[in-house]
Amino acid sequence: MSLNGRFAVEAIGPCLRVSPMLRQGNVKYVEDSRRLLIDPYFRTSDQAAYTADAANSFELAGPRHKIYFDPTRLRAGIVTCGGLAPGLNAVVRGIVMQLWYLYGCQSILGIRYGYHGLGPDGERPIPLTPDGVNRIRSEGGTCLGSSRGSPSTETLVDSLIRHRIQVLFTIGGDGTMRGASAIWQEARRRKLKLAIIGVPKTIDNDIPFVFKTFGFDTAVEEAAQAINRVRVEAEGVPYGIGLVKLMGRNAGFIAMAATLASGQANFCLIPEVSFGLEGPGGLFDLVEQRLHHRRHAVIVVAEGAGQELFETAGREEDASGNRKLGDIGLFLKDQLLARFASGPLPVTLKYIDPSYLIRAAPPIPADQRYCDRMARNAVHAAMAGKSGMMLGMWHGCMTHVPMLALNGESRSANPNGETWFNVRENTGQPHVIGSPVCELPAPASV
Amino acid sequence: MSLNGRFAVEAIGPCLRVSPMLRQGNVKYVEDSRRLLIDPYFRTSDQAAYTADAANSFELAGPRHKIYFDPTRLRAGIVTCGGLAPGLNAVVRGIVMQLWYLYGCQSILGIRYGYHGLGPDGERPIPLTPDGVNRIRSEGGTCLGSSRGSPSTETLVDSLIRHRIQVLFTIGGDGTMRGASAIWQEARRRKLKLAIIGVPKTIDNDIPFVFKTFGFDTAVEEAAQAINRVRVEAEGVPYGIGLVKLMGRNAGFIAMAATLASGQANFCLIPEVSFGLEGPGGLFDLVEQRLHHRRHAVIVVAEGAGQELFETAGREEDASGNRKLGDIGLFLKDQLLARFASGPLPVTLKYIDPSYLIRAAPPIPADQRYCDRMARNAVHAAMAGKSGMMLGMWHGCMTHVPMLALNGESRSANPNGETWFNVRENTGQPHVIGSPVCELPAPASV
Amino acid sequence: MSLNGRFAVEAIGPCLRVSPMLRQGNVKYVEDSRRLLIDPYFRTSDQAAYTADAANSFELAGPRHKIYFDPTRLRAGIVTCGGLAPGLNAVVRGIVMQLWYLYGCQSILGIRYGYHGLGPDGERPIPLTPDGVNRIRSEGGTCLGSSRGSPSTETLVDSLIRHRIQVLFTIGGDGTMRGASAIWQEARRRKLKLAIIGVPKTIDNDIPFVFKTFGFDTAVEEAAQAINRVRVEAEGVPYGIGLVKLMGRNAGFIAMAATLASGQANFCLIPEVSFGLEGPGGLFDLVEQRLHHRRHAVIVVAEGAGQELFETAGREEDASGNRKLGDIGLFLKDQLLARFASGPLPVTLKYIDPSYLIRAAPPIPADQRYCDRMARNAVHAAMAGKSGMMLGMWHGCMTHVPMLALNGESRSANPNGETWFNVRENTGQPHVIGSPVCELPAPASV
Amino acid sequence: MSLNGRFAVEAIGPCLRVSPMLRQGNVKYVEDSRRLLIDPYFRTSDQAAYTADAANSFELAGPRHKIYFDPTRLRAGIVTCGGLAPGLNAVVRGIVMQLWYLYGCQSILGIRYGYHGLGPDGERPIPLTPDGVNRIRSEGGTCLGSSRGSPSTETLVDSLIRHRIQVLFTIGGDGTMRGASAIWQEARRRKLKLAIIGVPKTIDNDIPFVFKTFGFDTAVEEAAQAINRVRVEAEGVPYGIGLVKLMGRNAGFIAMAATLASGQANFCLIPEVSFGLEGPGGLFDLVEQRLHHRRHAVIVVAEGAGQELFETAGREEDASGNRKLGDIGLFLKDQLLARFASGPLPVTLKYIDPSYLIRAAPPIPADQRYCDRMARNAVHAAMAGKSGMMLGMWHGCMTHVPMLALNGESRSANPNGETWFNVRENTGQPHVIGSPVCELPAPASV
Repeated sequence: MSLNGRFAVEAIGPCLRVSPMLRQGNVKYVEDSRRLLIDPYFRTSDQAAYTADAANSFELAGPRHKIYFDPTRLRAGIVTCGGLAPGLNAVVRGIVMQLWYLYGCQSILGIRYGYHGLGPDGERPIPLTPDGVNRIRSEGGTCLGSSRGSPSTETLVDSLIRHRIQVLFTIGGDGTMRGASAIWQEARRRKLKLAIIGVPKTIDNDIPFVFKTFGFDTAVEEAAQAINRVRVEAEGVPYGIGLVKLMGRNAGFIAMAATLASGQANFCLIPEVSFGLEGPGGLFDLVEQRLHHRRHAVIVVAEGAGQELFETAGREEDASGNRKLGDIGLFLKDQLLARFASGPLPVTLKYIDPSYLIRAAPPIPADQRYCDRMARNAVHAAMAGKSGMMLGMWHGCMTHVPMLALNGESRSANPNGETWFNVRENTGQPHVIGSPVCELPAPASV
Repeated sequence: MSLNGRFAVEAIGPCLRVSPMLRQGNVKYVEDSRRLLIDPYFRTSDQAAYTADAANSFELAGPRHKIYFDPTRLRAGIVTCGGLAPGLNAVVRGIVMQLWYLYGCQSILGIRYGYHGLGPDGERPIPLTPDGVNRIRSEGGTCLGSSRGSPSTETLVDSLIRHRIQVLFTIGGDGTMRGASAIWQEARRRKLKLAIIGVPKTIDNDIPFVFKTFGFDTAVEEAAQAINRVRVEAEGVPYGIGLVKLMGRNAGFIAMAATLASGQANFCLIPEVSFGLEGPGGLFDLVEQRLHHRRHAVIVVAEGAGQELFETAGREEDASGNRKLGDIGLFLKDQLLARFASGPLPVTLKYIDPSYLIRAAPPIPADQRYCDRMARNAVHAAMAGKSGMMLGMWHGCMTHVPMLALNGESRSANPNGETWFNVRENTGQPHVIGSPVCELPAPASV
Repeated sequence: MSLNGRFAVEAIGPCLRVSPMLRQGNVKYVEDSRRLLIDPYFRTSDQAAYTADAANSFELAGPRHKIYFDPTRLRAGIVTCGGLAPGLNAVVRGIVMQLWYLYGCQSILGIRYGYHGLGPDGERPIPLTPDGVNRIRSEGGTCLGSSRGSPSTETLVDSLIRHRIQVLFTIGGDGTMRGASAIWQEARRRKLKLAIIGVPKTIDNDIPFVFKTFGFDTAVEEAAQAINRVRVEAEGVPYGIGLVKLMGRNAGFIAMAATLASGQANFCLIPEVSFGLEGPGGLFDLVEQRLHHRRHAVIVVAEGAGQELFETAGREEDASGNRKLGDIGLFLKDQLLARFASGPLPVTLKYIDPSYLIRAAPPIPADQRYCDRMARNAVHAAMAGKSGMMLGMWHGCMTHVPMLALNGESRSANPNGETWFNVRENTGQPHVIGSPVCELPAPASV
Repeated sequence: MSLNGRFAVEAIGPCLRVSPMLRQGNVKYVEDSRRLLIDPYFRTSDQAAYTADAANSFELAGPRHKIYFDPTRLRAGIVTCGGLAPGLNAVVRGIVMQLWYLYGCQSILGIRYGYHGLGPDGERPIPLTPDGVNRIRSEGGTCLGSSRGSPSTETLVDSLIRHRIQVLFTIGGDGTMRGASAIWQEARRRKLKLAIIGVPKTIDNDIPFVFKTFGFDTAVEEAAQAINRVRVEAEGVPYGIGLVKLMGRNAGFIAMAATLASGQANFCLIPEVSFGLEGPGGLFDLVEQRLHHRRHAVIVVAEGAGQELFETAGREEDASGNRKLGDIGLFLKDQLLARFASGPLPVTLKYIDPSYLIRAAPPIPADQRYCDRMARNAVHAAMAGKSGMMLGMWHGCMTHVPMLALNGESRSANPNGETWFNVRENTGQPHVIGSPVCELPAPASV
């Protein structure tokens, strides 16, 4: 039976080979027909009857009984794109280990420095083996190198053909998935049997249908440490303000989670909830009150917060197609200093922007486990000939999500949801800071 | 509308007061009628129609619009029971903060050293305030002290009455929940308005309907470190065997997750999968093969594994009512040494039992966040007059689970499930070690 | 016998009381006449005869058999000044514990926010007790608060009299010691019996006669981590440059030690060795060569390095009397980007300035031990009526150093010494980078 | 001029070649005639005149202007012996890097599994290169493997000849140094030009003339953590006793330093100070008093402490020639449980023996720096043709110490010294615990 609908996963052909994993014994195979309800909430008063179809459910990830490829004659490629996130190396290692030992695929190429490694000036790919990747799982960064931007889709497909790569694992964010989706469509147009499997990576945690991206817990741990230290600095002087800028272009997930993990922030500012600086109840006023009562204040700001305070921000784009943001960290630093320079309180402000220290951190063990799990499921999907899809994580389950379903959207926090409410409980900040508040729409809830 | 069924949560009376949280603005209240499907998996070929009722769904946790108690006139108590787990202090802190600042309840007693603090020789409870608990969230252990065992239920209820405690938060494992359930039933029998809210704590992660107990990620991080170090020791000598005993009386969750996080174990032995020592394909044989090929071997064993190898184990019980186990770590150590003493390989064995180092560890930030979330939801439940229930965690959501639903069961790993399969992928161990294999039944899947 | 010379320590009166530590039994008292040779190196061909006097030796720290003060009738004060350094709280705790339990002095005041706490607008000092400070030894920052600058010496002495403080422990850097020395001289002028004991604190490690200041090992550990992470970032992109600015206004100790600890830097730039940017053998040229050969480069720069590249730097001073430096980190970042913008290499530069993350870090255990030892010896010195002196650390021994001996000098690294040579071994950088080289004088050797 | 006396270092021939390091520029060479006074303490009343000779001073380590070997034609070997200590890999890496890059010696063999790698059944040595060792500096354990015991000296020398090894770096403890000394004497007897350079390694920190062995700070950090966690466990139950056994066969350095670093122990028991269990003022009595007053007690015991409590201990030896000790940890655990089983206090005892977790730990950055420094100086010594010596560390300086000077002695703590006094200050324990006290002699002071 074939499914239609937004969440129907495509495949490049029928699965006719028995999986070589059979020799492992006792494998719990997953069938394509088994799916996970996207929205498992009910109201007892409802008389709703649910039947899962590809519009309201996800295909489950996992090993298939029959697979499409002959792993022993297959060449796989792995590419890492965009900014660093903790766990990239663990994903690369997991994919190599799974291909090599579980499926017997021993021709694996590591593409250098992102999609550019498939371009005209790209460095030669490196063969990947278990010995080569065995020790990297706990290291930060990516052994393949990464980059932003990409050659044209045609060039990428030509290059994959030249390298005889039939399965490409692309580890990256929404831009990378758009590129991967284009590759898949071009390959299909050319009638190529090319399996394109995405592993979602974004330190901002803003990819739809992925409840938590790998590296997030590590990033939050590092970010919480930065908050704790800026609090130490703020308490160490009279009327000290500690200000930390954290990652989060469209979504405040890291800022919120780090605020909760640290328990030391007094204000958490995120892209999803706009705020005002001036007037009663504005940020300046609230910080001044806090300084009066407690002698110090700690402010956490996501990099995408308060963009409405800039006149010209958001008009330009970088090589990955992301709009350029105004630097809200330096902006707040300057504005706060200017504001208190004239006031009665002898304020000292300590500003920390720990960005690269967080991005390059080694993954904590929980993230290493998560990366390993995602990598192994990515290989299962590829072997079954799935394509144009990425791994998802929904309600604790690994799923298959068509790249087209992303639809250019990004996930952000729900300003009416539990997490934001917990942040407000934790910081004691009011729901509304300053005015006027023009709340941004929230595409998906936390 | 009232619900019946295994997962229907009881309350001590109607909620007639408007929650004082209203003054926070923009609170997303949760209604009792909104529930979470326990099993959100479908088969596309099924024509099943689901309507949630209390037999197949959980009540969702969260703030209620109307509450039962008047928080300003309420006295709450908190008790921690059983062995230590990372995050106990963070839960205590979260409950105090939530009661004090969100609901305005400022009469909170900390019961000393578990249920014994409510007994005839119990130490006087200590008043808990935000200042007193502010800094403990990142500390290991429990500021209240803990203990195993309990005075009689009647004594406990008498004591709660004497202390004028109307809400009791009990943080503990299945034994603690049984005790709490008995308190709730005795209170109901006496027509007392007593809200008993459980926060599930078990370092073994084996409580039903709780996908992951707090402290688990911390425990796994520490356990994985122990595995890594014993691997260093095993590699540091010729024919070195590293053996680590980890927690897990009935369930191998910590052993499995630490094996996955470490990636350094060659054998993982858990209570759910029995194994044999002797003969071809037995543990001795496999270890010897490994030593021949790689010169070292690392074995992880959960404390409850291999109990069928002891003749007399499991007959006695400790003060918490847990059956006493044979010490599989020392047993394997002795057996392996004896076995190789006569053989040609000059084996050196290094044994680590890191138990208390793990139990007393400070919680990692991800666990701190989790504890905070659980604590805050426990307070919401109590304020709404729920009783005889504990917090659950299912498919990423916080839920209310009647204590009676636990039914004396414990959760264990599914030997046919994804996690155990991943462990076997990771270690390279066969599905069956030795014979005969008498597989234990698996009450719940991973 | 009384000593003269640069390193003769002054006291406020004769020691006539038997130390209450006698009741501890088996105390190894130190006599004032026992001293440590400053320069213990000999040449076998020399016929030199050494007799220690106060010009070539230090008085040893430690408990004295007879003391000056009656501890039970004494009030002590503790003040922390200047920027944060890891271990401040451990020093405060150690002083309190030693005063309270070993000597029986139970009247101890914590001065708030540096010397300003003794000024006209100063906050009221806080009584310090063992219970209050027991848990702070492993925390970053200072529980007393700190600040830069100071009221007038007269005001400080008046305030000490008003608070009836007879012993003042001043924890701070060279500016703080100058202030403490002025207090001591003013007190002597007024014939006050005031013991002023300094505990040297500087994250730059540049105080003369202190081989290693507390917090240094912690700072190096954090700094090395920053280098490792910027290396991960630099390796993660093609032609990546990682640039880290570390503390070190006059001395490159942190930059050098972190370079050695990390082993990942290719260039280490310190104040003691000037360098040039342009021309063959200049920094630009060397970085370009490195990028050609290895695709990435890591540069560590101390904040005081390369000041000769700024025209106007060093003319202004901050509140502590330190000259304001040009920001060599941002300068190098801009210069490198400008240089490679026009060149053929598509360079990406990642810049980290981890300053506050390092200063506010919790002390590692080795530093906690060191702080404890320094604090306890500071109390011994105070009880013996020493004044106008600070604790020193020389060849592994704790010593007494007259504040006047500092003479406004600071310690810096010897560009001909072992450490700098090891750094060059480690990075592979040449002795001379660019030209002309105008080497700064090195007041003291490493 | 040639020197005689206990601390005169021997060499295998004259240094006639100019060091290739000259090309590095600006190297600060060290001359053999420059020495460090062993005892730099003076009494001002003394009229002593000091001239350094080989009886009262150490030769200084460092690069020599002229060297003995032609590095480009040299083969070097590295061997690691005995138990693990943090930093072994960093030493191996430092030696390889220094040989390869600074001196141009590119023929380096790693001996497998200690001296046994030079025996008849020894595994083939592995060639060591910068690429191979680059990443191991922060890893625990030893990439070469280690072992206890040794083939005969003749066999070792034959094997070195067969492998054409002219320089052997032996990293190990006192037994290893005795072996190395025997090799050196056998080589000299055979008129071989064999440079034997020792790098002292002992986690117990008990090698004479080495103020602190590498790995010690790491071990103390880990040990302090174990103390902190057992304190958490002890506080977590009523009348909890936490007991930690730490390394230290003949010397209590780790136990003392960890006690100071942790600040959480109430009793510290070391080999240098005997103690009694029974009677007033005995350990049982003091623990009971502590439990009465504070409800918990923490005991730290070095493995060599209290050996006089065993009747038969110390008669047997292990493969390294160390006498076998009675297990004081288990002994105290059993004795304490037996004692309190009959008493009124319901004591719970938590026992931790973290041995391997400490030995296999990765070195902290401060130890990495130290290892690097020691390794580089070992290579300088070897190139200058020194032999039969090990690196020493005295008053902050690296020195050359003839292996014969060790004389079978080991270093232990001075029970009248500053460190032990600080421990007693810190724990509050009396100088004498129980009776009779038969204090062991202290060969060297702390």
